[in-house]
Amino acid sequence: MFSRKLVLAAGVSLLAALPVLSYAQSKPVHPGTPEEEIRYKGAPVPIKPEEAKETLSPKAPPVSPEEFTRAKQIYFERCAGCHGVLRKGATGKPLTPDITLPKGTEYLKVFIAYGTPAGMPNWQTSGELTEKDVDLMARFLQHEPPQPPEFGLKEMKAAWKVHVAPEKRPTRKMNNLNLENLFSVTLRDAGQIALIDGASKKIVNVIDTGYAVHISRMSASGRYLFVIGRDARIDMIDLWMEKPAVVATIKVGLEARSVETSKYKGYEDRYAVAGTYWPPQFVIMKGDTLEPLKIVATRGMTVGDQEYHPEPRVAAIVASHHKPEFVVNVKETGKVLMADYSDLANLKVTEIATARFLHDGGWESSQRYVMMAANQSDKIVVVDTVKSKLEAIVSVGKIPHPGRGANFKHPKFGPVWATSHLGDETISLIGTDPKGHKANAWKVVQTLKGQGGGSLFIKTHPKSKNLWVDTTLNPDTAISQSIAVYDINALDKGFQALPIAEWAGLGEGAKRVVQPEYNKAGDEVWFSVWSAKNQQSAIVVVGDKTRKLKAVIKDKALITPTGKFNVYNTQKDVY
Amino acid sequence: MFSRKLVLAAGVSLLAALPVLSYAQSKPVHPGTPEEEIRYKGAPVPIKPEEAKETLSPKAPPVSPEEFTRAKQIYFERCAGCHGVLRKGATGKPLTPDITLPKGTEYLKVFIAYGTPAGMPNWQTSGELTEKDVDLMARFLQHEPPQPPEFGLKEMKAAWKVHVAPEKRPTRKMNNLNLENLFSVTLRDAGQIALIDGASKKIVNVIDTGYAVHISRMSASGRYLFVIGRDARIDMIDLWMEKPAVVATIKVGLEARSVETSKYKGYEDRYAVAGTYWPPQFVIMKGDTLEPLKIVATRGMTVGDQEYHPEPRVAAIVASHHKPEFVVNVKETGKVLMADYSDLANLKVTEIATARFLHDGGWESSQRYVMMAANQSDKIVVVDTVKSKLEAIVSVGKIPHPGRGANFKHPKFGPVWATSHLGDETISLIGTDPKGHKANAWKVVQTLKGQGGGSLFIKTHPKSKNLWVDTTLNPDTAISQSIAVYDINALDKGFQALPIAEWAGLGEGAKRVVQPEYNKAGDEVWFSVWSAKNQQSAIVVVGDKTRKLKAVIKDKALITPTGKFNVYNTQKDVY
Repeated sequence: MFSRKLVLAAGVSLLAALPVLSYAQSKPVHPGTPEEEIRYKGAPVPIKPEEAKETLSPKAPPVSPEEFTRAKQIYFERCAGCHGVLRKGATGKPLTPDITLPKGTEYLKVFIAYGTPAGMPNWQTSGELTEKDVDLMARFLQHEPPQPPEFGLKEMKAAWKVHVAPEKRPTRKMNNLNLENLFSVTLRDAGQIALIDGASKKIVNVIDTGYAVHISRMSASGRYLFVIGRDARIDMIDLWMEKPAVVATIKVGLEARSVETSKYKGYEDRYAVAGTYWPPQFVIMKGDTLEPLKIVATRGMTVGDQEYHPEPRVAAIVASHHKPEFVVNVKETGKVLMADYSDLANLKVTEIATARFLHDGGWESSQRYVMMAANQSDKIVVVDTVKSKLEAIVSVGKIPHPGRGANFKHPKFGPVWATSHLGDETISLIGTDPKGHKANAWKVVQTLKGQGGGSLFIKTHPKSKNLWVDTTLNPDTAISQSIAVYDINALDKGFQALPIAEWAGLGEGAKRVVQPEYNKAGDEVWFSVWSAKNQQSAIVVVGDKTRKLKAVIKDKALITPTGKFNVYNTQKDVY
Repeated sequence: MFSRKLVLAAGVSLLAALPVLSYAQSKPVHPGTPEEEIRYKGAPVPIKPEEAKETLSPKAPPVSPEEFTRAKQIYFERCAGCHGVLRKGATGKPLTPDITLPKGTEYLKVFIAYGTPAGMPNWQTSGELTEKDVDLMARFLQHEPPQPPEFGLKEMKAAWKVHVAPEKRPTRKMNNLNLENLFSVTLRDAGQIALIDGASKKIVNVIDTGYAVHISRMSASGRYLFVIGRDARIDMIDLWMEKPAVVATIKVGLEARSVETSKYKGYEDRYAVAGTYWPPQFVIMKGDTLEPLKIVATRGMTVGDQEYHPEPRVAAIVASHHKPEFVVNVKETGKVLMADYSDLANLKVTEIATARFLHDGGWESSQRYVMMAANQSDKIVVVDTVKSKLEAIVSVGKIPHPGRGANFKHPKFGPVWATSHLGDETISLIGTDPKGHKANAWKVVQTLKGQGGGSLFIKTHPKSKNLWVDTTLNPDTAISQSIAVYDINALDKGFQALPIAEWAGLGEGAKRVVQPEYNKAGDEVWFSVWSAKNQQSAIVVVGDKTRKLKAVIKDKALITPTGKFNVYNTQKDVY
């Protein structure tokens, strides 16, 4: 089942790279039902089917209207993530008719059917597409890409629902939960999250959300939890309720990855923000109701060449601690936008030209500089959020994928921020203290050798001396099912590999180990052992000091657990 | 020849509304020559033919590839100005296939052939399109609009030429001209400007430029003159040369209206900026060479509805005197952008939500507040350039078209700024002194009745007591050929009409009177008497105090003179 080539390429959306667990599988294709409404799982408002304008290019091989509808759906579910909705290319190659028409149907069919070593999946030989579908896609790709519908204020308001109005919510915490040590765990293929108590390891509640929740984020006060699905649905959960539940929901587009909340003094819990892949834009919302207030399009010129890009997707967003600003990564243009939310009617946005394609990132330990991965460029860009300008661009390994990265005090080089990589086995440590360790600042001060490529996340904690690195997407099962842990005070000694998946004691299954996450105290590390939807998964809890198994969380409800977010660490940006 | 209905509608691009003198006439259509390069008159670099992607909608009536090419060209030249390149509608109605397909070919043909009282020209009965072309356009409009090519840094650099490098230019003024009283006069259909000496009324030089130069602007120092054609060609003229001539040229897009230069202390002559209709963007250039530095796309969300607009055209741009900022009007989104040019790598843009469709405007007398016409909304929006935020929105008459407007001290209401209108005969006076006359600030304090609708420009001068209002586009010849002049100290007495065209002593011809412009001293007013390309035109100079004819400038070279820009008044924003 895992014999397929792995997609190990820049811009792969985190866990989406595992084909067997792909989006496409849980979202059935609806061939030939153009008039039918596709109801996104759990979405508050039915979403109309893709209203893309259908135009046929006279020079391309014929495609019937029914085939066009089917091809559009397949493309959106299986191809758009890497090649872009408008086929301009990102992780995958560009597939616009000026390129595909000269190649022709037979040539394209070979690529779609058999894949490539560079990362294109073998859609036909893996059994995921029929020969007929492969032929259809080869013809479809020679026509102009149909553009999906826009999603403006009207569409957002139609998809917005306040389940419990702010005045009807509790005025104090109504439960006995230790909220700061609660974990919000993505149940990817179930379209849910589980809230798990950090001490007892018991599931507090399982909550319906959008599909494949990408991240959880906390309001500045720590009361509200925001989760966003890949289908751009946001759910806002009130942790003060007797049983924490969703109080407001919205859908902000067709595909999304990021949500964040205002954290500057005086603006705590005031605003939320979400960035979408389609349409390429971000939206600022009321922090207590998710009412959409201000939409900002990101379509514009690329860094360097200054060419217009029609689909600059919004990747990670973080909230500045120094100004009333959101820091917004725009992937395809390579620009970091600092959006000032203090005056939405006279919105000030500083556009910082960095490098392509911006993806994920996080704060260094002082929380003044934000470190963002430009994955296609093998760079980490450093933005000074006090001055709202570019501080440095640092060359690292192949396809950095830091998540939010890991901060610790290096025994020799002082404060560093670390990233692992999708494309090689290294871990890059970057000096982050321009005052105390000026010579090391914004330089790779040390490169560690890890278990292998395919790493998604790296983690430590201010109270820990361990640095944990996963290798979730490594094709070698032994490597993808174990974790590398380094002693921060003896990095030269190399890593110890812990067989996390084995410790989970599960039966058959993928059992990929993904995303170390600390508890609030910093003395436990949680790992997801992630199997397919129809197989058992688990969460493995390891003692930080002992590096030994402490607990295994198993439950029928724990379907495909992936990202885990400790409330306190997420709220305070501790990583 | 002037029997056709006049296009008196919002967003009409200044003088473009006169069909008999339209762009289309001087730019021959090249049917069936898709491989041929169309050389724009005087352009430094040949421009490839429109590379719009051709896609045919299966449901629309057939159009052959040759017909499609021809229809595209006709649409761009005759229809795009009002309906938008992407047919989203502006002055004219939207013409996207969701609207045109249900109407069908026969219905559309009637509109195209006979026009409408609402302003659609009668293309067939006027003889400008054949019956065959009308049929073609009716079919073409049922297909998806082909998108014209983008114009990024590569295209701009290819179309950029420095004729005289800065180091080879004079270090002091090499001529005996009184530069401050020089006039730059657009020779619209000749694709030229004439430099005319204000004292002698002699033509100093006639310079090849882009087509139908829209405006002339001065560098802060008064040395460099910038002109921009509707074809988005900019020419930069060095007035210090023995014979002032073009030292740098660029083409920044396919269609444009605005150019301006940096005026903030410390940035004099440093940057130029130009805004384009297509692509919808603006570009900041080096002030001494026109080297393109930074392109900013304007595609984004409309004010109010917050819907994505694919073609938000850049109209007027002015340079702030209080900050290193350009003030950029974005027509279709109704947003005023304050673009901070002090750090182009970390570009700060404040987006002020105002009203649609922003067009032209200018400073009130203190040069702190800028008054911009949102013509479709019948509003003047007031932006505070010290605070970079919206100050007020003022309701005025129908389709305000101020040019830059006129400032004077009203005997009763204090400082006011005035605009005339395209859509009615009124002149609106708005109080502009929030400190000294707070109760009147940003209110229409008085409405004057003028000669009639169809006014394009209004003018006075700090040293004058006269207020001049043209009625260039009025269908009544007597009105379009004369000027209304008011005594500022006796506005209630109404206007005196001066028969400017008659004073010109020309023969047959359109003889529309357009755009009053003062000399530096403020004791003369210049008017264009604008005839067709093959007829004689003239400039009529009137004594300001006497209101009597002072001089008539006639010359074979004075082909279709329209806008006139006195160097000093333009440099210092005196109006």
